[in-house]
Amino acid sequence: MIVSALLTSLGINTALCVLFFILYSILRKQPSNYEVYVPRLLAKGTSRRQSHFNMERLIPSPGWVGKAWRLSEEELLSLSGLDGVVFMCIITFSLKIFTFAGIIGILVILPVNCWGSNQQDFDITNFANNSLDVFTISNVDNGSNWLWVHFSAIYLVTGFICLLLFYEYRYISSRRISFFYSSKPQPHQFTILARSTPTYPGCSISDSVENFFKDLYPSIYLSHVVVHRTSKIRTLLNESKQLYKRITRLQSDSDPTLPQHNCCGIFGLCGRKSNLRERYEKKLEDIEENVRLKQSKVLLAGEEARAAFVFFKTRFGAATASSLQQSINPTLWNTELAPEPHDVYWPFFSESFMQRWISKLVVVAASILFTILFLIPVVFVQGLTNLSQLEVLFPFLTTILTIKFVSQVITGYLPSLILQLFLKLVPPVMEFLSSIQGHISHSSIELSATKKVLWFTIWNVIFATVFSGSVLSMLSILLDPKGIPSKLAAAVPAQASFFIAYVVTTGWTSVSSELFRIIPLIFSLIRRPFTSPSDEFEEVPSIPYHRDVPRILFFGLLGIIYFFLAPLILPFLLAYLCLAYIVFRNQFMNVYAPKYETAGKCWPIVHNSMIFSMVLMHIIAVGIFALKRLPLASTLVVPLPILTLLFNEYCRKRFLPIFVAYSAESLIKKDREDENDATMTLFYDGLVNAYKDPALLPTQYSSNSGDLRSALISEA
Amino acid sequence: MIVSALLTSLGINTALCVLFFILYSILRKQPSNYEVYVPRLLAKGTSRRQSHFNMERLIPSPGWVGKAWRLSEEELLSLSGLDGVVFMCIITFSLKIFTFAGIIGILVILPVNCWGSNQQDFDITNFANNSLDVFTISNVDNGSNWLWVHFSAIYLVTGFICLLLFYEYRYISSRRISFFYSSKPQPHQFTILARSTPTYPGCSISDSVENFFKDLYPSIYLSHVVVHRTSKIRTLLNESKQLYKRITRLQSDSDPTLPQHNCCGIFGLCGRKSNLRERYEKKLEDIEENVRLKQSKVLLAGEEARAAFVFFKTRFGAATASSLQQSINPTLWNTELAPEPHDVYWPFFSESFMQRWISKLVVVAASILFTILFLIPVVFVQGLTNLSQLEVLFPFLTTILTIKFVSQVITGYLPSLILQLFLKLVPPVMEFLSSIQGHISHSSIELSATKKVLWFTIWNVIFATVFSGSVLSMLSILLDPKGIPSKLAAAVPAQASFFIAYVVTTGWTSVSSELFRIIPLIFSLIRRPFTSPSDEFEEVPSIPYHRDVPRILFFGLLGIIYFFLAPLILPFLLAYLCLAYIVFRNQFMNVYAPKYETAGKCWPIVHNSMIFSMVLMHIIAVGIFALKRLPLASTLVVPLPILTLLFNEYCRKRFLPIFVAYSAESLIKKDREDENDATMTLFYDGLVNAYKDPALLPTQYSSNSGDLRSALISEA
Repeated sequence: MIVSALLTSLGINTALCVLFFILYSILRKQPSNYEVYVPRLLAKGTSRRQSHFNMERLIPSPGWVGKAWRLSEEELLSLSGLDGVVFMCIITFSLKIFTFAGIIGILVILPVNCWGSNQQDFDITNFANNSLDVFTISNVDNGSNWLWVHFSAIYLVTGFICLLLFYEYRYISSRRISFFYSSKPQPHQFTILARSTPTYPGCSISDSVENFFKDLYPSIYLSHVVVHRTSKIRTLLNESKQLYKRITRLQSDSDPTLPQHNCCGIFGLCGRKSNLRERYEKKLEDIEENVRLKQSKVLLAGEEARAAFVFFKTRFGAATASSLQQSINPTLWNTELAPEPHDVYWPFFSESFMQRWISKLVVVAASILFTILFLIPVVFVQGLTNLSQLEVLFPFLTTILTIKFVSQVITGYLPSLILQLFLKLVPPVMEFLSSIQGHISHSSIELSATKKVLWFTIWNVIFATVFSGSVLSMLSILLDPKGIPSKLAAAVPAQASFFIAYVVTTGWTSVSSELFRIIPLIFSLIRRPFTSPSDEFEEVPSIPYHRDVPRILFFGLLGIIYFFLAPLILPFLLAYLCLAYIVFRNQFMNVYAPKYETAGKCWPIVHNSMIFSMVLMHIIAVGIFALKRLPLASTLVVPLPILTLLFNEYCRKRFLPIFVAYSAESLIKKDREDENDATMTLFYDGLVNAYKDPALLPTQYSSNSGDLRSALISEA
Repeated sequence: MIVSALLTSLGINTALCVLFFILYSILRKQPSNYEVYVPRLLAKGTSRRQSHFNMERLIPSPGWVGKAWRLSEEELLSLSGLDGVVFMCIITFSLKIFTFAGIIGILVILPVNCWGSNQQDFDITNFANNSLDVFTISNVDNGSNWLWVHFSAIYLVTGFICLLLFYEYRYISSRRISFFYSSKPQPHQFTILARSTPTYPGCSISDSVENFFKDLYPSIYLSHVVVHRTSKIRTLLNESKQLYKRITRLQSDSDPTLPQHNCCGIFGLCGRKSNLRERYEKKLEDIEENVRLKQSKVLLAGEEARAAFVFFKTRFGAATASSLQQSINPTLWNTELAPEPHDVYWPFFSESFMQRWISKLVVVAASILFTILFLIPVVFVQGLTNLSQLEVLFPFLTTILTIKFVSQVITGYLPSLILQLFLKLVPPVMEFLSSIQGHISHSSIELSATKKVLWFTIWNVIFATVFSGSVLSMLSILLDPKGIPSKLAAAVPAQASFFIAYVVTTGWTSVSSELFRIIPLIFSLIRRPFTSPSDEFEEVPSIPYHRDVPRILFFGLLGIIYFFLAPLILPFLLAYLCLAYIVFRNQFMNVYAPKYETAGKCWPIVHNSMIFSMVLMHIIAVGIFALKRLPLASTLVVPLPILTLLFNEYCRKRFLPIFVAYSAESLIKKDREDENDATMTLFYDGLVNAYKDPALLPTQYSSNSGDLRSALISEA
């Protein structure tokens, strides 16, 4: 690739980005798009749809940028909790790194690279015709002493990142502790989840839980709630929810006070629709009756899962019971701190220790296989898109395919489009795999999926793109660790132009389109005719951590690896991060609402992936310097990954425990604060209700008041 | 090697063994050898030296064999604690494996190997001239279907070992729990060790410990003892101990009522000796005075280390405080359950978190380097022993070296002897390394040294012997994991004859000489003229786990790997184990006394090394079947290591927690038992004294009553 081509791409894609920006600035002001752009405010009732029209709505105003920029950390904390703050920390952290690495890269390394003549001489007179390779380390002459500049830069940047990582970890740790100190008493602080409770003949699970914990902790045991098997009820409830959606849609269509989106009036289908509505309502009533019967059956017949939420009078008591092995048999009475009530993932509760273990093993194996074998179907499908194949499959296309523009688009963009589409599959697949792994909370599923997507990205984009070739040859590379540095060193710099182009084109467009919510908007436009505006089932989305965190971290990884190989990549990454910084601060204020609070538990993932990036950078540097015939530099880099790993080990000891559990000191301090609080009795009473399975709550959709169920429940 | 040579070796070495056995049977009855053979009974006072002579003492009687055989497990438990039982379990466990593997190996695999003709045909008529290779898998023809016999045997033996491992783990776990249930209240159950206690200006460590724990655990905190910096006192005490030894020796020499071992009477040196004694006594008094001064200085000036033993009223309280992270800063107030009082390793207490961490890293690196680089000096020294080198170094030996027998001995035995001598260095070196690693108890130092010696043995004997070559080439093998099976398969069977010969000759002799305590006897004979018979400083030795466990496990490893490669090795291993079984049951009754009780904590090491052996066997099998051109069998072996590792993972979850900490259930149960026990107040009072640093106790040797010190201490 030459400079002029890059500049052209950059121009086109920046224009697209500006277009998206303008579109975003206009479209976000249209009341009909509020679900897409400000669902959060809509849900809170802060923003009402204005039906009156004014000109201001059509003029793109960048006021939101300033608003997002001025948002203070405390405001962010109150809006999105500590998780939101930590999420922004990831972006600001990356920004800091890239600013530092960017200054060194552009001002020092880039001139050194251009100065060399290994690939070709830098042609200042004909700037646009220079190959991108001129800007990479490949252009430095073999054995040149200028390579020591790169060497020093690696040490400098590593030191800077480590320092930053340390301060950031310390800062987030302290935020986490002060967040805990400032928190009101919350159910999950006083609750543990006991799983694999043993069953005794003639004794219900509930009895055995009560006996066990009351006996062990007579002074601090409060009460408990046994988890029931409710998967069937959950299926029925989903069905009734769907039905209710349909009914409300039909209702709104026939309601003349609401704006008419639908074709009812035109085609005179209203009569048929009201018939349909009655049928649906009847069916809904049947299902809800069924749900009520099943609920009472579950409660009466005691379909108890081998799990229970156990409540304690103190946070310290709950922490003690969750940290110590309870039973003589370590596979029984497994305890852990309970997640927040609305963070509980109910479907996977009834598993035994063995089931959980096996499902975890299966999921780990499946994720690894999925990650490694992912490229096979992609390459196969991509293979179908070459012209001759298409002509064989769809003979009628032959004439169209002979047009040069069409064939260029197909051969140039289709394979990349297919890869992008397949890549879109990854986060949901990983989320699904994590959900069947036996996690008990949505947040841990999210964190686990985040890790999986991150590893997937690293493997498939870095390694698989770098080592083009079959899966087996990639495996053989991993099985020969000695050769990794030299192989990486030979392959990675050669891919520099590719990654620069990738970031400038596909990355730029896809990221900006996603940031400005173009795709959600398109989906919403497609869906609009089929939904009612008063559709109360549309929930406010929570941040899709497992999509966004791996992406930001992946850009961080690229930046760290390429800062000394091809510093040209850094300005683009910086620009992307600035964009993300603004938009995320805004997609927090208006769009995303936190569903649960992990208090920054994702930071260790960020920390680890940064350490991984640095070590990977060092390994590549070892290879590069060897390849460039500067063996002394190659040897002198070796201590760096060792020091980095030692630094990581220190951070693990110093900070990681804070993200795993709260200390006795802080738990007891909080408990003491509550001792004289009169409202605690009320709080204790509320604990049992906090951990009720939503599938066992009274159904809300149908108008029937559910007398039968309440009668039955009172019996139970 | 051919059969006749093996038989000759076997004959010679068995004769040696029988000789040792007879010597042992006679010598152990001589009162003058009681320190070597029955130090334990001597210490207990059960066995008195009989001074009258009778003929029975000179006749070798094998009565002790029967006595050792009849020793029941309960007797063993009362004699040597659970550790002794578990130690015997290792031997019986290996015996069971080898019996099963031996039956399959000798009855099924051996005939199949002999049947082949790859190396040479089995010559039944001239049995003694067969090469040992005839009995190994190398003799089976390539591609022969007989290899499926080996294949089935591998599955069968793996299954058997896993089954046995499971039952053994379960049995020892249950023993451990019942041992805890039946134990009396013991100081270490109620005590935690808090390290890295922070220092505040104007506040002693003792105050800050008291404030911290009294504040957090007001209802269960009892008291504490701060650890003092006593390394200087310890040096002085060692000096005074040495002096006291010399004085008592001089005293006994001049005491006419004691038997005269010494040359005093003959050479008329008694006068000079009594002068010497007076000088020593003066010096001893000076040192003890110094010790008392230093002791009082330490106590008065508060030379406190940043560590303290904290006592709780309940076992559960101590367990809670040790399992939860205490402070907001995870590097401060590190807590762990205290070791038994006499198991405490005092010298390394004053270290901070960082110091401990760094010393651990350094020790790990040093152990790895020592293990990997060990062979370099050995090979170098061995190189010096070739004839021409010796002739250059010691020209006067030239005539002797020309004698064929001498040169044969030198070239044949000297290198092996040098290796053996170097190997003797390993356990003490590893023990030293473990001792500076920051462990707080002798038992954990012992366990850590056991692991290190085990890995050392596995690396240097299996890998380094198998892959003869430089260290770097060995490293390059490890860095190319894909090639390991084929390389192992090519190298291991070729070493079969070597290992058979090794077990039959060097192994047999060195093991039996050690078992029958020949070397301790020789040492004792050498030392005898310089010690007095009433020398009360000779302590009863505790079992050198870090020497004996790795050796038994190494034999187990050999047996598991070679049972299908060269089953001929099994009978020898079995014979050795039987010998060890008898002798260890006896060197428990009479020799070794347990110094501390880990309640079988070494079993997980045994379990893990057995799993390692099996996986290594599977890897070799994969390579062997590929080499023998039976790729199907090679592929079908692959699931076996995966299943074995899964089994191991299950055991880790099911049993390992029991070896790490006691469960809340059992702790609370034990606490309840003590609730109504009136003697507990007395026990609580005794706790503080139990964890007194021995360096701060009153000195015993000199006759002075130490008025000054007691006065000073009462002031403090």
